[in-house]
Amino acid sequence: MKPGKALIAQGGGPTAVINQSLVGAVLQARSYGHIDAVYGALHGVRGIVDEEMIDLTYETNLNLERIAQIPSSALGSTRDKPDADYCKEIAKVLQAHDIRYFFYIGGNDSSDACRIVGNFAKESGYDLTAMHIPKTIDNDLMANDHTPGFPSAAKFVAGAFAGVNLDNRSLPGVYVGVVMGRHAGFLTAASAMARTFADDGPHLIYLPERTFDIDKFLGDVKSMYEKHGRCIIAVSEGIHDETGAPIITKLQEEVERDAHGNVQLSGTGALADLLVNEIKSKLGIKRVRGDTFGYLQRSFLGVVSEVDQKEAREAGQMAAIQAIGHGNSGTIAMKRVGNYAVDFQLARVEEVAALTKVMADEYITAEANDVTPAFCDYLRPLLGAAPLDAARLLSPKVSKILKA
Amino acid sequence: MKPGKALIAQGGGPTAVINQSLVGAVLQARSYGHIDAVYGALHGVRGIVDEEMIDLTYETNLNLERIAQIPSSALGSTRDKPDADYCKEIAKVLQAHDIRYFFYIGGNDSSDACRIVGNFAKESGYDLTAMHIPKTIDNDLMANDHTPGFPSAAKFVAGAFAGVNLDNRSLPGVYVGVVMGRHAGFLTAASAMARTFADDGPHLIYLPERTFDIDKFLGDVKSMYEKHGRCIIAVSEGIHDETGAPIITKLQEEVERDAHGNVQLSGTGALADLLVNEIKSKLGIKRVRGDTFGYLQRSFLGVVSEVDQKEAREAGQMAAIQAIGHGNSGTIAMKRVGNYAVDFQLARVEEVAALTKVMADEYITAEANDVTPAFCDYLRPLLGAAPLDAARLLSPKVSKILKA
Repeated sequence: MKPGKALIAQGGGPTAVINQSLVGAVLQARSYGHIDAVYGALHGVRGIVDEEMIDLTYETNLNLERIAQIPSSALGSTRDKPDADYCKEIAKVLQAHDIRYFFYIGGNDSSDACRIVGNFAKESGYDLTAMHIPKTIDNDLMANDHTPGFPSAAKFVAGAFAGVNLDNRSLPGVYVGVVMGRHAGFLTAASAMARTFADDGPHLIYLPERTFDIDKFLGDVKSMYEKHGRCIIAVSEGIHDETGAPIITKLQEEVERDAHGNVQLSGTGALADLLVNEIKSKLGIKRVRGDTFGYLQRSFLGVVSEVDQKEAREAGQMAAIQAIGHGNSGTIAMKRVGNYAVDFQLARVEEVAALTKVMADEYITAEANDVTPAFCDYLRPLLGAAPLDAARLLSPKVSKILKA
Repeated sequence: MKPGKALIAQGGGPTAVINQSLVGAVLQARSYGHIDAVYGALHGVRGIVDEEMIDLTYETNLNLERIAQIPSSALGSTRDKPDADYCKEIAKVLQAHDIRYFFYIGGNDSSDACRIVGNFAKESGYDLTAMHIPKTIDNDLMANDHTPGFPSAAKFVAGAFAGVNLDNRSLPGVYVGVVMGRHAGFLTAASAMARTFADDGPHLIYLPERTFDIDKFLGDVKSMYEKHGRCIIAVSEGIHDETGAPIITKLQEEVERDAHGNVQLSGTGALADLLVNEIKSKLGIKRVRGDTFGYLQRSFLGVVSEVDQKEAREAGQMAAIQAIGHGNSGTIAMKRVGNYAVDFQLARVEEVAALTKVMADEYITAEANDVTPAFCDYLRPLLGAAPLDAARLLSPKVSKILKA
């Protein structure tokens, strides 16, 4: 095994468990005798280029275990997407510090960055082992049954809709909840786990895997409202028309784009407000409310799936074992075994880099306004223990005397 | 003690613990031999007028204990505000069913309804004991140190800002979080509990107790952003200009009002979007995001203060003891004892009915953009156990080689 230093970084949107992967990889990396030091880059690849790194070699185990529990990226993150010049800068820093093992925790964009850096090192004859560790609340990585971060965000979304369902039963009306997810609807679909009783919401679920038609939507809402006297709707922020244009752009004059060319969808309540106004004006329903769950979905302190925590830790550990223990570059792919365990396999980073997995057809109903029981079966084991039993008062009606 | 039936109802916005008060009152009421039955009105006073009631006398203790755990109003709620005619209808129903004890769990509007019903019964010579049980996430009831429902909503707000603070450290920028609260800023102020380290957000807090000036606001944000390289802002939905007009009405063409004449503030992301656009356009900061916490604050399944749960239960129990055990009408007022216990005292309903408590001057800084340590001391014991230890990586910086 080649001696040298290991470097770890976190990229893209933070999650509730990305620090579990960080801590898993750091603790495992430190256990190998041929590792001189374990560095952490601040704010992802940006910290490498800027030579902004910290030395995690003597970070106490106690503090690492605390860090593992908190949401967000403890090293800081970035949205930078390295091009060839950027990678040249990265390679220079890695070489200057004798870094021989590079770990990048992130989603499809970060795995692509990891791939580019690995290829660039190989082309320039620098012996580097580059390993991607999966993470994304969107659950949209190819080659993975699911990804760390998604189950905890899904638990938040399910808890939000379960509470909203009860609130809306107390004061009936129409409620629109907008959930994160640009191309993949997994997180929006998780709202289905809020249901226990037959008339529980969400009553309608709209995903970016299907074209969104406003007239069809209004017809669905009208029909559910007539049936239940109320209607709760889960909508992905990424819903789009038949041309692929996000519905949110129909409203906003100026559209903000990130370094990857993506339209900004989060951090604004515009989509919920647009849909609420459509329902009020076209269906004449008075009490219509919209919430946009926003950053709370990925960062809320105290809502986490214990299954997700363990798996994120294990993904980080396995990355260190494969890279430092066995000298393998690549990515760690999570494969489901039975009902339910996970096998953490080494895979080629090209299998996930810059690719997007969306929901399988079998998870979406033909009407394109709900998910199937197969999706709920898929998601259930990831969420860990339910926070509460669902319950309703069961007492009989009192016989009327005056209005009998 | 006069024999007869007891009736309980829930009014106004649901909370995480309003069912604790329901269950506390029902269990205690059922223990008295002179109570023939305990009824529950569906959807507050509306259910009385419509004679829509259920008989809770034989609801199992097991199911009641499950109900106590879930957020929202298990009996359903209403925004109806009874006038004289409405009360005449209520009195007729109470008389027809021989209801001699009436409990109404709610905020200032519901306590006023309770007062009107009680007075009307007295004037018409019907022997009725009317008892109000405090509840409101706004924490704006007079005569109370604090009110059931507020601590759990405050815990949600603190957890949200603690997570957002970590998320925003990972990917720095400006973040605006809009919190419920029309006239009283207690819930927005609870965001201060998200702080541990000196540079933790929220860095600015705006309350409806003070006039909101957009230029002062932009100056504050600019200064904090320059200091920290990021800025997290907690804003009450009720912020208003010097005329008292809500800032949100500056944007919306059509304004929705409820039966009490209040402008609709919740269920829309308009205020956050307005402030975000001001910051982007006037300060030229690129990454600016806004979230509106919305209904999740009062309904999220699984976030609750165990202190709040116990106190809500006790308020319900004490209401039954005072009304059924001692024949007293009124309200239960929560008084703080030492640091920390609560004394549940009988008080006159006129002390709380239709009145609004706002934050004391000593809880708001002179700059009107933050809360004082005294407020944090006030709030701390109400929140129960912290979900997590705060933590940061403590490792030293790596010495630069290339950019030294």
